[in-house]
Amino acid sequence: MTVNRRILLVARPDGLVSNDCLQHVEEPVPTLADGEVLVRVLCLSVDPTNRVWMREEDSYLPAVRIGEVVRAAGLGEVVESRREGFAAGDLVMGLPGWQDYWKLTSEDSAQVVPPGIPAEDMLSIYGATGVTAYFGLLEIGRPQPGETVVVSGAAGGVGSVAGQLARVKGAGRVVGIAGTDEKCRWVVEDLGFDACINYKTEDVAERLRETCPDGIDVYFDNVGGEILDEVLNQITIGARIVMCGAISEYTRSESPGLKNYTSLIMQRARMEGFIILDYLDRFVDAIMELAPLVADGTIKYNVEVVDGLELAPDALNRLFTGEHTGKLVVRVSEASAS
Amino acid sequence: MTVNRRILLVARPDGLVSNDCLQHVEEPVPTLADGEVLVRVLCLSVDPTNRVWMREEDSYLPAVRIGEVVRAAGLGEVVESRREGFAAGDLVMGLPGWQDYWKLTSEDSAQVVPPGIPAEDMLSIYGATGVTAYFGLLEIGRPQPGETVVVSGAAGGVGSVAGQLARVKGAGRVVGIAGTDEKCRWVVEDLGFDACINYKTEDVAERLRETCPDGIDVYFDNVGGEILDEVLNQITIGARIVMCGAISEYTRSESPGLKNYTSLIMQRARMEGFIILDYLDRFVDAIMELAPLVADGTIKYNVEVVDGLELAPDALNRLFTGEHTGKLVVRVSEASAS
Repeated sequence: MTVNRRILLVARPDGLVSNDCLQHVEEPVPTLADGEVLVRVLCLSVDPTNRVWMREEDSYLPAVRIGEVVRAAGLGEVVESRREGFAAGDLVMGLPGWQDYWKLTSEDSAQVVPPGIPAEDMLSIYGATGVTAYFGLLEIGRPQPGETVVVSGAAGGVGSVAGQLARVKGAGRVVGIAGTDEKCRWVVEDLGFDACINYKTEDVAERLRETCPDGIDVYFDNVGGEILDEVLNQITIGARIVMCGAISEYTRSESPGLKNYTSLIMQRARMEGFIILDYLDRFVDAIMELAPLVADGTIKYNVEVVDGLELAPDALNRLFTGEHTGKLVVRVSEASAS
Repeated sequence: MTVNRRILLVARPDGLVSNDCLQHVEEPVPTLADGEVLVRVLCLSVDPTNRVWMREEDSYLPAVRIGEVVRAAGLGEVVESRREGFAAGDLVMGLPGWQDYWKLTSEDSAQVVPPGIPAEDMLSIYGATGVTAYFGLLEIGRPQPGETVVVSGAAGGVGSVAGQLARVKGAGRVVGIAGTDEKCRWVVEDLGFDACINYKTEDVAERLRETCPDGIDVYFDNVGGEILDEVLNQITIGARIVMCGAISEYTRSESPGLKNYTSLIMQRARMEGFIILDYLDRFVDAIMELAPLVADGTIKYNVEVVDGLELAPDALNRLFTGEHTGKLVVRVSEASAS
C-alpha cells in the first residue's frame, strides 16, 4: 500500500459524531527522518475517551485540534524503524489514531508488546481495558470480602471485567447495570454477576434496593449522570465510588447535576476518579494477575470487531447508543504473515 | 431552680427554623433512677448539623422525632449522679439538647472533661469544632508543603481553624471564602489567610482563578452547592475535596446539583466526606496538638456567645443567614462557684 487513509477532525461534534465533523483523506505513506518509526496500524481501540478528546476543552490530554487525525489507542506493526528499540515486525501499542500508517516521532511514546496474542485481545483483556478494570477496582474501589459491588456499563469492556474481578476478590454480591435484556442475560448467565438491572426498562432505584439490600459498598461507575445520583442514595458507610467514566455526560452539553452528593458526608464515603495512563509503569503487574484468570476461564470477556478503518466513526457512536457487548475494536489491517 | 425549660420539635422546618416548629415547655427537673445522672446545661454548641437532625430523614444519627427535645451538643455540670464515673461538680460533654437539665440515662454517652477551661472554649477550639477542622484537614485533605488550600465558611468556627492549620502544615497559599467584607477582613488580617473572597459580592470563579493561579489542591468545604461546583472546575491533578458540610443545602428542598463532577475523573481527584463522631477516640490527639498552637497565638479563634436558652433557635438560624463570626454558642447557665 502506498496510500495512508486518515480521518481528520474538522469540526467539534455536538452529541454523536456526525459526518460533517470528519474528513476522510488519502495521503502518501509518511517517509521517515532519523529517530522516527513507521507503524502500520492493525487494530484500534474504541473508547469513550475518544469522544472526550474531540471536545474543545483540554482534558487529561490536550484536545484534538481541528485538522488533526482523530486520536485513538491502538496496536500496529513496525514497517520501518530509524529509532533504537524498534525493529521491523515489532508489535507496538500506543495512540496511532484513525489512520492506516502512524509515524512515531521522537515525541510519541509507544510500547513494544510480545507477539502471539491476537491484536483484539491485546487491546482488551491484555490492554488498557482489562488494566483499567484492575486498577480502578483494586486501587480505588478496594472491595472487601463480603461487600456489595455495583458496576455500571456492566456489559462493556471495562465493566464486564471489573465485576468478575470483584467476585474473584471475594465480593459477596456483584450487581451490574446495562442497557438491554440481552446484555443483562450475558452478564448474569455467562459472567456470573448475581443480578443485572436494565436501566432502560426497569426502575433503577427500586431494583438497586432489591438487589443490594445491605446497600452499596463499592460502585464502579462508567456512566455518571442520573444512575450515579441514585447510587449516592444507597451507599453504605465508608463506601467507595470509582469514577472510571461518565459516558452519559460526554455527548450532552449540560449535566443534570448530582443532587445527592451530600450523602458522601453522611456516609463518610469517597468518590474518586482515575486515569489509566497514570498506571502505565504497572501494567505488567495487572496483566500478570489477569492472564491466568483469563486462561482458566475464571474471567470471561467479549470482543466485537468492526472491520475497516472507515467504520471507526460508527463504532465510536455505538458506544454511546449502547449497541455493542464487551470491548469494541476496529480492525484496520492484518498482521503480516511472518 | 426547680423548672426544666425545654424546647421541643413539634413540626419539621422548611428553610429556616420558624416558631411554629418549636414548642417551649416547662417541666419539673427530672428525678433519677439507678444508673442515671442529672446534668445542668451550661452551654450549647450551635452547629449546622442541628438543622440536619430536624429533617424527616435519618442522617448519621436518627432524625429528632416530633415531640422530642431539639438535639444539640453541649457542656454541663453534674448536679447529682447515680452512675459510677460521674460525680456532682464534674463537667461533662455530650448531646444535652435544648433544655436546662439533661438526664443521662444508661443509653446516653457523655465524657467528663477537665475543669479550668471556659465552657465556650470547650465547645469550640478544644471541642468538636477544632477537632473537626483538625481531622478533616489532616486525614482527608492532607495538604502538602507548598500546596494551595481553599476553605469555604472561612470565618466560621471550623473553617477559620482549618485555614490556619493548613498554613501551620506548610500550605503555600490559603484562600478563604466568606459572606461579608468584615469576615473577609478578619480572615485575612487577623487569621493570616492570603486572600478571602466575598461570595455574595464577588465573582467566585474569577476570584478563585486570580487567587489560586496554580489551581486548587485541597478544598475544605463547609457549604457545598454552587461554590463547590465552581471549585471542581479549578482543581489540580490529585486534588482532595474535604466534605465537612454543605450548609447551602440543608435548608433548601432541592439541590441545584453538581454539574462539574467529571472533573474528578480528568484530574484523578477525590471528594470525601467525614463525620467527627468517627474520631471520638482520637479527640485527645487533636487537642494535644491544637492546644499549644492556640496558647502561643499561632491559631486564633473567635467565639460568639448568645445568652439564654430561649435564643437557641435564633442562634441556629444565624448560621444559615451568616450573621456570626467564628464559633457560635448559647450560654444556658453559669457554672457553680466551686
